Amino acid sequence: MQPNLHDIEMAATRLAGRAVRTPMLSSPMLDEATGGRILLKCETLQKTGSFKFRGAYNAVAALTADARARGVVALSSGNHAQGVAAAAAFFGTEATIVMPADAPRAKVEGTKRFGGRVVPYDRAGEDRDEIAARIMATSGASLIHPFNDNDVIAGQGTVGLEIAEYCSASGDRPEAVLVPCSGGGLSAGIHIALHEKLPGARVHVVEPEGFDDYARSLAAGAIRPNERRSGSICDALMSRFPGGIGFEVNQRLGAGAVSVADPSVLAAVAFAFRHLKLVVEPGGAAGLAAVLSDAFDARGKCVVVVLSGGNIDPETMAAALASP
Amino acid sequence: MQPNLHDIEMAATRLAGRAVRTPMLSSPMLDEATGGRILLKCETLQKTGSFKFRGAYNAVAALTADARARGVVALSSGNHAQGVAAAAAFFGTEATIVMPADAPRAKVEGTKRFGGRVVPYDRAGEDRDEIAARIMATSGASLIHPFNDNDVIAGQGTVGLEIAEYCSASGDRPEAVLVPCSGGGLSAGIHIALHEKLPGARVHVVEPEGFDDYARSLAAGAIRPNERRSGSICDALMSRFPGGIGFEVNQRLGAGAVSVADPSVLAAVAFAFRHLKLVVEPGGAAGLAAVLSDAFDARGKCVVVVLSGGNIDPETMAAALASP
Repeated sequence: MQPNLHDIEMAATRLAGRAVRTPMLSSPMLDEATGGRILLKCETLQKTGSFKFRGAYNAVAALTADARARGVVALSSGNHAQGVAAAAAFFGTEATIVMPADAPRAKVEGTKRFGGRVVPYDRAGEDRDEIAARIMATSGASLIHPFNDNDVIAGQGTVGLEIAEYCSASGDRPEAVLVPCSGGGLSAGIHIALHEKLPGARVHVVEPEGFDDYARSLAAGAIRPNERRSGSICDALMSRFPGGIGFEVNQRLGAGAVSVADPSVLAAVAFAFRHLKLVVEPGGAAGLAAVLSDAFDARGKCVVVVLSGGNIDPETMAAALASP
Repeated sequence: MQPNLHDIEMAATRLAGRAVRTPMLSSPMLDEATGGRILLKCETLQKTGSFKFRGAYNAVAALTADARARGVVALSSGNHAQGVAAAAAFFGTEATIVMPADAPRAKVEGTKRFGGRVVPYDRAGEDRDEIAARIMATSGASLIHPFNDNDVIAGQGTVGLEIAEYCSASGDRPEAVLVPCSGGGLSAGIHIALHEKLPGARVHVVEPEGFDDYARSLAAGAIRPNERRSGSICDALMSRFPGGIGFEVNQRLGAGAVSVADPSVLAAVAFAFRHLKLVVEPGGAAGLAAVLSDAFDARGKCVVVVLSGGNIDPETMAAALASP
């Protein structure tokens, strides 16, 4: 059974007082640059620096006390890692995180700071699923999947609930919502919430060029993997294929898809630093890159852009600021 | 006559729809680091990247149409410059800005982007007042003083009004408000608003060590200048002495004073980048530096910290992120 609005509302109750109710920001400079009215849902300001804390917390909360006592395991390039580590810490649960060796330092350090035990692996040569399976077989720990999990999707859906509540209070009527997309858990959760709460807004997943498995899967009506496993500046958006649960949601509800080139992403990261005074990581800036480039025409439209994460290394920020 | 609450409320009416009503943000990470509950008033997210737009707009609006037609002049290291340029642009008024040659590039570029004409001067060897006087004598343009002006102070006071309105809605009862301080216009404006609207909150000015003219002036009961004119990382906080109008306000209403060392400021800039995902310039982070260092003990307290500006060069950010 797919997660539904009720599941998201339950997740919102669990998250109340734990997760940050992130602000929706706007900027005259951004509106001028895009020709639209852009509302930024700032999950960069979420606990752990990305939306991932929401789904992770909801999933850890949903475990039985016995299961929680045996610990949790996660596979993650870094944002889900930090979300799971911080969520597990709330419950006094041990979190083991299998992370690619080339994950941004900020994310590895963050995961450790939140109390997670990090197990690195080689993105090209090792199978992270096997590593996780071994850990679970030994410890009896539960896997917290980064996206293909009803509780995770319901947790991420609280972002959609907050977008709808904001627009209801402000009177804004966005016609599009742009969501950075890897496995599609965030976009699916948002989609479920907005389908009922803000039906005029079409959800678009935004992916890096070359990692547009979601766009191709939506077009084909069936899941299509990426050929490449590495090589995008968007370290958070390189899942191999859409999660099945979220894909059914996004397909049924009619998601659009947009892809953005790495230089546009770096330009968006730099724009956010210079003009919005916000620290956004490449993957988190994919939606912003879409409205600032010609990937998505925002002229004359009210568009919600989710800034999904801000865990960026200083070197990557320096590269973005030095790019033309 | 000193500016009063009515002047600030008038300024708020003028600024409605022009200035950004900046958010008040909080962060579990910051609360943990300080042991208090810290509310961040994010003027970094204001139009032009600092609070200065508020006062500048209010002052340009207060000019007669004839005076506006002759243009405006400002002396500024960069934030007031951008504020005046952007405010003047709203009215189709020419803005000439006398800026130190060593002002951050981001600020010079911003001033030009908002339509200002920049006249550079040597901070150590030239008298900026003379340069401005010459320009005014030729053009008949009006000086928009960065802080010693009733309309400017009233405009900055809208920050205080918004702080009070936020706390009234949220139920927060801050006992202290920390305000980065150069000439003292922002702190004076905030003080006037909070004295009536949030009387339990004591306003503290925060200055860089070695540029603590305000602290020494408050202690002496009379204005005392700084010896140095340059040399702090806080490029925005190096005015030579307190503005007379604001000083009377802050003295009468009982402002506290705190000073922070450059390394604490750089650490605060880095903390904001890493953990708050906010871009804050050194001077704008002085209050944050106070609660993160031992300059101001926030333990067990609810404290409002004004992040007054975010116009920082990439090199300075890199230096902050590389500092221990």
